[in-house]
Amino acid sequence: MLDKLSSIARFKSSCPYLGRTKTSTLRTMATSTSVRYPAISRLTEKATKCPIMGPALVIRSTQMASVNHTNSYASLAGKAQVDEIHKKEGVYPVSMGGVCPHASAAAAAAKTAETILAARKAGCPAHAHSSNRAAEVAATTAEPPKTMAPEIKQQAATASTFNYESFYSTELEKKHKDKSYRYFNNINRLAAKFPVAHTESHAQEVDVWCSNDYLGMSKNPVVLETMHRTLTKYGAGAGGTRNIAGNGQMHLALEDELANLHRKQAALVFSSCYVANDATLATLGSKLPGCVIFSDNMNHASMIQGIRHSNARKVIFKHNDTADLEQKLAQFPKETPKIIAFESVYSMCGSVGPIEKICDLAEEYGAITFLDEVHAVGMYGPNGAGVAEHLDFEAQQAMGRSADPVKGSAMDRIDIITGTLGKAYGVVGGYIAGSADLVDTIRSYAPGFIFTTSLPPANVAGAQASIAYQKEYMGDRRLQHLNTRTLKQQFAAFDIPVVPGPSHIVPVLVGDAALAKAASDTLLVEHGIYVQSINYPTVAVGEERLRITPTPGHTVEQMEHLVRATTETFDKLGIKRRADWVKEGGRAGVGASASTEAESVAPIWTDKQLGLLDGTAPKMLSSSKGQKTVVDLKALSEAQKRFDVTLENASFKYANAYGDHARANRFPHEQQQAPFLSVQA
Amino acid sequence: MLDKLSSIARFKSSCPYLGRTKTSTLRTMATSTSVRYPAISRLTEKATKCPIMGPALVIRSTQMASVNHTNSYASLAGKAQVDEIHKKEGVYPVSMGGVCPHASAAAAAAKTAETILAARKAGCPAHAHSSNRAAEVAATTAEPPKTMAPEIKQQAATASTFNYESFYSTELEKKHKDKSYRYFNNINRLAAKFPVAHTESHAQEVDVWCSNDYLGMSKNPVVLETMHRTLTKYGAGAGGTRNIAGNGQMHLALEDELANLHRKQAALVFSSCYVANDATLATLGSKLPGCVIFSDNMNHASMIQGIRHSNARKVIFKHNDTADLEQKLAQFPKETPKIIAFESVYSMCGSVGPIEKICDLAEEYGAITFLDEVHAVGMYGPNGAGVAEHLDFEAQQAMGRSADPVKGSAMDRIDIITGTLGKAYGVVGGYIAGSADLVDTIRSYAPGFIFTTSLPPANVAGAQASIAYQKEYMGDRRLQHLNTRTLKQQFAAFDIPVVPGPSHIVPVLVGDAALAKAASDTLLVEHGIYVQSINYPTVAVGEERLRITPTPGHTVEQMEHLVRATTETFDKLGIKRRADWVKEGGRAGVGASASTEAESVAPIWTDKQLGLLDGTAPKMLSSSKGQKTVVDLKALSEAQKRFDVTLENASFKYANAYGDHARANRFPHEQQQAPFLSVQA
Repeated sequence: MLDKLSSIARFKSSCPYLGRTKTSTLRTMATSTSVRYPAISRLTEKATKCPIMGPALVIRSTQMASVNHTNSYASLAGKAQVDEIHKKEGVYPVSMGGVCPHASAAAAAAKTAETILAARKAGCPAHAHSSNRAAEVAATTAEPPKTMAPEIKQQAATASTFNYESFYSTELEKKHKDKSYRYFNNINRLAAKFPVAHTESHAQEVDVWCSNDYLGMSKNPVVLETMHRTLTKYGAGAGGTRNIAGNGQMHLALEDELANLHRKQAALVFSSCYVANDATLATLGSKLPGCVIFSDNMNHASMIQGIRHSNARKVIFKHNDTADLEQKLAQFPKETPKIIAFESVYSMCGSVGPIEKICDLAEEYGAITFLDEVHAVGMYGPNGAGVAEHLDFEAQQAMGRSADPVKGSAMDRIDIITGTLGKAYGVVGGYIAGSADLVDTIRSYAPGFIFTTSLPPANVAGAQASIAYQKEYMGDRRLQHLNTRTLKQQFAAFDIPVVPGPSHIVPVLVGDAALAKAASDTLLVEHGIYVQSINYPTVAVGEERLRITPTPGHTVEQMEHLVRATTETFDKLGIKRRADWVKEGGRAGVGASASTEAESVAPIWTDKQLGLLDGTAPKMLSSSKGQKTVVDLKALSEAQKRFDVTLENASFKYANAYGDHARANRFPHEQQQAPFLSVQA
Repeated sequence: MLDKLSSIARFKSSCPYLGRTKTSTLRTMATSTSVRYPAISRLTEKATKCPIMGPALVIRSTQMASVNHTNSYASLAGKAQVDEIHKKEGVYPVSMGGVCPHASAAAAAAKTAETILAARKAGCPAHAHSSNRAAEVAATTAEPPKTMAPEIKQQAATASTFNYESFYSTELEKKHKDKSYRYFNNINRLAAKFPVAHTESHAQEVDVWCSNDYLGMSKNPVVLETMHRTLTKYGAGAGGTRNIAGNGQMHLALEDELANLHRKQAALVFSSCYVANDATLATLGSKLPGCVIFSDNMNHASMIQGIRHSNARKVIFKHNDTADLEQKLAQFPKETPKIIAFESVYSMCGSVGPIEKICDLAEEYGAITFLDEVHAVGMYGPNGAGVAEHLDFEAQQAMGRSADPVKGSAMDRIDIITGTLGKAYGVVGGYIAGSADLVDTIRSYAPGFIFTTSLPPANVAGAQASIAYQKEYMGDRRLQHLNTRTLKQQFAAFDIPVVPGPSHIVPVLVGDAALAKAASDTLLVEHGIYVQSINYPTVAVGEERLRITPTPGHTVEQMEHLVRATTETFDKLGIKRRADWVKEGGRAGVGASASTEAESVAPIWTDKQLGLLDGTAPKMLSSSKGQKTVVDLKALSEAQKRFDVTLENASFKYANAYGDHARANRFPHEQQQAPFLSVQA
């Protein structure tokens, strides 16, 4: 068996092209399909231009034509047979660093950039590409030589100009070195098989246990049906910004739905909640005179960026520590504008913000509250409005579909709620909800809202249907939380360390970057389970984890499989159990005491709310019984009705004062004088 | 006839609720549908709680029940009959400021906040809402009294805290005062009737002449079909970030398609091109040591924000002025990292950046180039890659589907190209294309890319199909540019002032904010034509305009109607013609000389490229002949094939090195040692 590591080193030293091209570039080329010849890689295509390898490859291809498709050059996924054939012949494809007999001569020719440049100018087709790059490398002396020659994109680079490509390469090396470089898994979630996805091979199916499609709404029939209908009627895209041709009844109806969900006067939809958070905090923080923004130290990147972009003074308080927050608030005059920015459910650890206490402090110190409910909307509360709604469960439930706030409730006291349409609601986009003037101010001043194409009608309509469905039906989130409880119990039974928390996130502590990645890889490869490892900088070094998110669609059998696979993986890789963390004094909230009970946190959903007391709690699905995700027909019909109203009776359906322009336009002259009256005329 | 203006003032002074509520809030409430009772407005619903109006409304409703639907309270669009009935009865709905007999008593009661607060605490349902607000107003003394009392969201506000709601209100007043407040038209573009949309009334259809769906790809059958199929198979949303469960073959295939389109090593997709520009410039500008960013003074807001967020030194150069740019570049040492950020087609004036000259300067002064092709992708070049591709039309065309760059071409020389999937390509999203390491650096470091849910598979697949289609078929953009020429000629014939430019944008100069809005309103209301007026701050004061964007779908008849309606509107509103601007010495490039020829600019698409010389030019459609937008069957089939390959043979279809992780995961141990080899094993 050929030693691959040493052979690639040898090939790199003997072939001028391989030698002067970075391994990462070779990998890219080897894994890229040639656009002209989709059956071969870009590297193989390049090799066909080599005077030695070219003819060899032609012979190969002829021989391969008689072999089946997956054994041809098309198969980059690596089939043992391809290796076998090549080994027998003693010829390796260039994509693996083929043994190249002309290497030594070419290497000599490559020694001086001048020689190669001359060859290029003479129009030598064989080395046009590689020699060009080599010349550039040789011509660039501003940077000290690297072990691997960087590719340089400076056609006329002189010695004194900055070497951009080398800089990018260095930045990437840093990521590789600190293990924060991300490889994306190829995951294709199948609507008909939720929560199953196929990987890059359609035949390889895996159970997805880490998606933020928490409730499976991305495959809910009313969402899909609504989107199909909207797509057919209104097309693929909005065609403009909200101000220019991209504002339709779907957008206005969604904003109505959101305002109603949070019982606020208005709501505004953005491309994403990243943009919503960034744009809103940046705009408010920069406009409010002398504004100070108080930010929980576990806040999401989008808030951190928004605060940075505001150029406002930023004060960071300890995670969920209201004493620390108060002490910091007290340092500023009461009349100073202040924003307290925090989250309800913190995504990576599953902790929950002390909403009511923060509202108390905001009122006492004259601040407004900015609450990110991104991981909570759809998941908590009788209508799915989030944790703030959940805190007054019965009162909010009693209020029904009314748009009026429950006076003095947590949700009412929060000034600005932000949420996403891309997690529990299963589609895409983000939003803010708050007072009419606040929302109108952001609408009128935030560049991130103003200067961007609005979301396609179909996405927006699907999101509205999803919200409407979840308003009507608590079964999905109830079952999600029941499954969360069950999974935590099962993990506890095997001493698998779960970071304690009251929410739907199940963070399994691994405590080491390489181990976390290995655990994720092992689950995927050996058990057909996809759980992404979460490493630095998303979590602190030493607190690396597997972030597991159960859904109502996961069956008893899938959960048993997950628990068994996780314990096996822990055993195989020697990952620390909870008992080990106890011995070490605990980490990330795990094992700080010897008793599991001591660190248990009461879940947000109570037994009563889950229907455990009156026997209305939903039951876990079983694949062996052929059960699939439950769909509530009443909620379906209600959501469908909502969409139908939006679609058919749009002329009197929207809330936004700024949405009535077309109506007002019927009477443009009156409108100029008295916009309010002209609407009524 | 009742004088509405004076009556609302009178009602406001006699009813405590109306008096203390802002007109804008009343308008919002009057135009918002009650969620509980969709047939009435929120304001009417509120009125039912009034001890006087409540009973009156009950009687009204009973009477109205026998009248048809559009005459009931549901009709907020204003029906004369409703007014008539109320006038006869001498009772006005509160939504119009009804004459309220209890007003004087209530007004007296409202005089002190203490009294009202006491009433509220005693649970008086009639005035719970209004008295609460009144109390808040009275209790807040930090701000000087306004002519209209602001709504205040400070439940426990004390005199010394900042008045946020009043601040928002003031900010909005500024927008109203400088006429930059935006009313959104309600426009619903109908896929089957492109370029026709319905307004908030389904019966009111208008010709859309200002959408950025330049080619009508939002209703192209292959785009819609691809999206329907993807939606059914992969559901409504991606379910996560690219790193966690949100990276699938659709995303990777789209990035391949984009890299190939621009003949770059790699591409990266973002939520929007606003985010792409912002994230890329912010990341590069902050990471490149001592970076200076040179920015065209007409650059889009997304670039301006990105540069601001980078905190890099910013140098603004005059629009398209390479002499000014060079003079500014020369002031910095050659080794200083520099980015020149500019656009190909400037959206609001239709001018085009001097790409090749800027590349010369970049090479000479050691800068990289950042080119925003947002308004150009799909529209220029043999493959639709934009103006940079168009500049080497024949060479790029000869290169066919190859991913290799045309060495030394304008597109090759540009370091970073950014584009959108939401304008000519008709869907949503944005991207960058460039070298593999540049793209990987942005992928690895830009929070706006990393921490956001990825675009839904269906949107991404639709965008790929759209790009593939436009690569295969030049007919749409040829006809678009032919229609642009024709429209400019027809406007010239009527002396309608068009800002001269070589692109597909037809900016009709109005030169006054109120007039531009009135022209837009008149076109909409009187002629059924939607063209949004573009006012400050999008364009300079005095350069207000109607921005018209012809498409291949506009027919001869629709264009005739537009030209006739525009001339009539110019006449009616007394808007200046080109001759008038000549007399004034010109404005915004219009009428700087007496001769129209003198200011004509050669269009980017030449006669030859449009097929005018060989008779292959497409013909304008005619509605009278029943012609609809042409669909090219070969391109359809090619785009469909591309999608099928993505869908079915995904295992060997993608380019990204970072996309092969699932594949590499089959051999996690080899992968840890030698990622390149393990992919091949």
